[in-house]
Amino acid sequence: MEKHQQQPLQIGLAGFGNVGAGVYKNLIKNRALLEKRIGRALEIRRIVVRDPAKNRDVALPADLVSTDLDSLIDDDAIDIVVELIGGTDRAFELVKAALEKGKTVVTGNKALLAERGLELFAIADEKKTPIYFEAAVAGGIPIIKTVQESLVGNHIESVAGIINGTCNYILTRMTEAGLDYPEALNEAQNLGYAEADPTLDINGWDAAHKAIILASLSYGCWVPTEQIYVEGIEKITRRDIEFAQRFGYTVKLLAVIRLHPESSAIELRVQPSLIPRGHILASVNGVFNAILIRGDVVGETLFYGSGAGQDPTSSSVISDLADAALWRNTCEGQTGFVPHGLYGKPLPIDETDSKYYLRVEADDQPGVLAQIARVLGDHDIGILSVIQPEDHDPGSAPIVLMLHYARFGTIRQALAELRSLDCIREEPILMRVESL
Amino acid sequence: MEKHQQQPLQIGLAGFGNVGAGVYKNLIKNRALLEKRIGRALEIRRIVVRDPAKNRDVALPADLVSTDLDSLIDDDAIDIVVELIGGTDRAFELVKAALEKGKTVVTGNKALLAERGLELFAIADEKKTPIYFEAAVAGGIPIIKTVQESLVGNHIESVAGIINGTCNYILTRMTEAGLDYPEALNEAQNLGYAEADPTLDINGWDAAHKAIILASLSYGCWVPTEQIYVEGIEKITRRDIEFAQRFGYTVKLLAVIRLHPESSAIELRVQPSLIPRGHILASVNGVFNAILIRGDVVGETLFYGSGAGQDPTSSSVISDLADAALWRNTCEGQTGFVPHGLYGKPLPIDETDSKYYLRVEADDQPGVLAQIARVLGDHDIGILSVIQPEDHDPGSAPIVLMLHYARFGTIRQALAELRSLDCIREEPILMRVESL
Repeated sequence: MEKHQQQPLQIGLAGFGNVGAGVYKNLIKNRALLEKRIGRALEIRRIVVRDPAKNRDVALPADLVSTDLDSLIDDDAIDIVVELIGGTDRAFELVKAALEKGKTVVTGNKALLAERGLELFAIADEKKTPIYFEAAVAGGIPIIKTVQESLVGNHIESVAGIINGTCNYILTRMTEAGLDYPEALNEAQNLGYAEADPTLDINGWDAAHKAIILASLSYGCWVPTEQIYVEGIEKITRRDIEFAQRFGYTVKLLAVIRLHPESSAIELRVQPSLIPRGHILASVNGVFNAILIRGDVVGETLFYGSGAGQDPTSSSVISDLADAALWRNTCEGQTGFVPHGLYGKPLPIDETDSKYYLRVEADDQPGVLAQIARVLGDHDIGILSVIQPEDHDPGSAPIVLMLHYARFGTIRQALAELRSLDCIREEPILMRVESL
Repeated sequence: MEKHQQQPLQIGLAGFGNVGAGVYKNLIKNRALLEKRIGRALEIRRIVVRDPAKNRDVALPADLVSTDLDSLIDDDAIDIVVELIGGTDRAFELVKAALEKGKTVVTGNKALLAERGLELFAIADEKKTPIYFEAAVAGGIPIIKTVQESLVGNHIESVAGIINGTCNYILTRMTEAGLDYPEALNEAQNLGYAEADPTLDINGWDAAHKAIILASLSYGCWVPTEQIYVEGIEKITRRDIEFAQRFGYTVKLLAVIRLHPESSAIELRVQPSLIPRGHILASVNGVFNAILIRGDVVGETLFYGSGAGQDPTSSSVISDLADAALWRNTCEGQTGFVPHGLYGKPLPIDETDSKYYLRVEADDQPGVLAQIARVLGDHDIGILSVIQPEDHDPGSAPIVLMLHYARFGTIRQALAELRSLDCIREEPILMRVESL
């Protein structure tokens, strides 16, 4: 325990992209403050990049640069490897090699953890070497530490998160400025809030990776990527958002993790969802993220902040470095990833239930609503209300329904039947109405 | 470091009131989960109460009860003393004695820390024995750990908190149900949200104690109670809230802590304040608390939850016990209370500035507004807008002004002159309009 007061923590940094450069920049900028606060110096000993010649906003310190990832492992003076190269292959090999050599790891790589975390945490456990990953979920929001440490005395009842800033920006602009989806996406790309290839954000999988990590921490229950139900926001139109508003709701891409106490099963899904307009989650706008957690002891809590970006994400990496410098969390059983057997299996998505928003585009002729209502009735799905807006394109008319609580599996069967009706023109749009 | 895997953490609990009973109840309830998560058992070895015969919601375990506080210190098997007796005299002696014997302390006593924390943390530092106090600020919200650990790499730019649930409940009910202050206070008392003697909540001092702790953690700058400017909500009327709404604002009791970088001075105050209606802090209602923190690296973050109550507060105490069980935060320099000299002195309140809401009750006759405007003009205080509502009691007429940015000292001089005008009927009501 005394070691840390003698010598600086020697850091090997892998990757000098957006986040890597931010960590370097902010560590230098706030070095004096950080060292006063934690009582130990942090020193970056080597930075490994693929292409040292690349043009960068933050200048690479030439004396620290290498192109050899192995050099981070081989240098015994390096205490800690910070993996910020992204991807799941080279990153996996790097983290594995570091752990096997007993080097602490800090990573912000949600895809790596969601897809291969189980393997890595088994190695960490065996080697009694910690992995820190605050930056992997929700950027600057300290949600990992909150779940692992602050809520440690709670059975987590549910987690509901707006954890993809790109989607939240697009949905916010569609809501507030009445933009169409392609316009809003284009704007997000121009502002740097969406990547040139935005697929992984837009299709919900970035949020899904984060949700797998949060579920693991909350329930010690590992949900494989194949077992999480994920929908993106690609199909949501400006009109769906307007109809949702008429019913009193705001549309958000929501990751939901919920314990079903009777079966000890974990509901885990990412879907565009309707949230009551007055709910605090509905006021989370733009690129901001927020996570609402209910615990059996703490009640309702919410954590809000920037879910991405160079500076917010490096705030989380630096807090992990401080934890490592002070030897916090070096104990076993703290990784959260190793299933501890207290909770059960993922709940099949078809067994979840909620209320729903459903929009169908149908032939503009008498009897169409009756046909739709008959299909829903055949499946015992109650209709709460219907809007048939008068202003629409000739020929095809939207019918917007709010449906009562029903099993998702039942809804999917009914949807299949609706699709086969002659009067239906397009793929119906279905969204959950969340009970938060 | 291995010690914790062998033996249970032995806890001596002082106090079995609302929070003490909650800690006991929830530790028992969630024992299996907690022990799985942290890998160490927590055992309550003794509970000290003043009156064992008192009727309680949670039954006192008879075999653990004592009335002798010294027994917690004298029993060498007790690793940790949990101080939940409240007050600042016996509690001070207990915490001091525990630290001097090298026993870790957990406390939720904000008054103790705000008034005598400097002494206690000096002892803790000397004895290298940690004090944990997550429960002292904002109940179940893990704001202490967030500032101490998660934001450790940030210069904190500002902290703005709704950190008194009683006041927030009263103001929420005055806003939403149009209640008068006495009605809302009465309702809060009937619901158990306000004490029979609500003075310390209502006059702002409960929030001030918490703000002193947050300022200390944020800036390593100890602000004595005499140097913090505190106003309560006693003078706010339903009409002030209505007028604020007309201008687009919501009234909240806000604790504000802000670094003035040019002077390295710390602004620290508790006042009823106007917050723009669309701001996320304006949607924090009822007994909920929230703290908005801006850091130079993380940007804007917000932490929301129950700020009081048996269960939420015990969630924080239990997380401190888990930290202690795992020997987290045993390092020096982590208390936050010891001034580390990076930031300066408290800023005198008269040197702070903002926009203001001002209501005066004046004689209902021509020329009154001119007199008021002249006083303000003499002090170079700009008027942004004026409401003179037509519906009012005969004789006395309210004049409601939104004032431009001005020094608080200047405003106070102008207020003194306004009071001396013959046409002014009552003490004017002044509130800050916050820039968040």
